[in-house]
Amino acid sequence: MERTRENVINVVKGLPFFDSFSDDEIRMFTQYLSLRQVDEGTVLFSEGEMGDYLFFVIDGMVEVSLTGDGKKHRIIANFGPGASVGEMALLDDYERSATVRTATPCEILILTKYKFDKILDEQPKTGIKVLKGLAKNISLRLRASQGRFKDIL
Amino acid sequence: MERTRENVINVVKGLPFFDSFSDDEIRMFTQYLSLRQVDEGTVLFSEGEMGDYLFFVIDGMVEVSLTGDGKKHRIIANFGPGASVGEMALLDDYERSATVRTATPCEILILTKYKFDKILDEQPKTGIKVLKGLAKNISLRLRASQGRFKDIL
Repeated sequence: MERTRENVINVVKGLPFFDSFSDDEIRMFTQYLSLRQVDEGTVLFSEGEMGDYLFFVIDGMVEVSLTGDGKKHRIIANFGPGASVGEMALLDDYERSATVRTATPCEILILTKYKFDKILDEQPKTGIKVLKGLAKNISLRLRASQGRFKDIL
Repeated sequence: MERTRENVINVVKGLPFFDSFSDDEIRMFTQYLSLRQVDEGTVLFSEGEMGDYLFFVIDGMVEVSLTGDGKKHRIIANFGPGASVGEMALLDDYERSATVRTATPCEILILTKYKFDKILDEQPKTGIKVLKGLAKNISLRLRASQGRFKDIL
């Protein structure tokens, strides 16, 4: 079933990422996003590929894995509704740092690098809020990764 | 010896972080920065404290350490001229994730959270460039940390 535009706006309002956004900002920002239904077991990004979008999980669960020693995939995280995945691709031009696959049927909301740069250009005040939010998420992940390995440093 | 303003501008021009900045942007941005001479052995931030600035190393070397098991400090990185240190404090309201101390006499260029928010407000186009640069640095550090621990995942 297709969601209406009003429905998408309500979904975005419910995401913790947008807690500090006004209704007008959410309405405006939503125009730059696109919604997609994805089957279970779909690889959304592959480690080592170039990436050009991030997504928010609206419904379902995705799993993030890295290729470890002996080329075995190890799952390092699972993300459910509300999480943002793939921020780094919007900020630098490096390859995807992990593989992301849907663990269940998912509904995701996509922000491409192209649209992100468009927001920054056309709506800098809102763009800055989005950019700060993404940087904060990456920063929290770096803190978590430092904490995780602290005992072996 | 005090640096003249022109001299500070030239120092900033030489930092890799500002490679994509025009002369006018650097001139404008430099007004928001302050230069400081720091003695060897000075603790610039302590792990667990609240932070409200980042700095660029202009001259000298700083060491970054974490408190590991048994409360021993382990040095996890050294940064020399050109590096930026402490970005996370400008983006989130958490504590400093590591301790930073000057390993030699240092010259550093400080950007406070207050001045950073002022740039974003007063000069959004340049502010966005700075914010993207900081986010990219954090992102690269997260990639490096994932790579470092990959064999034990």
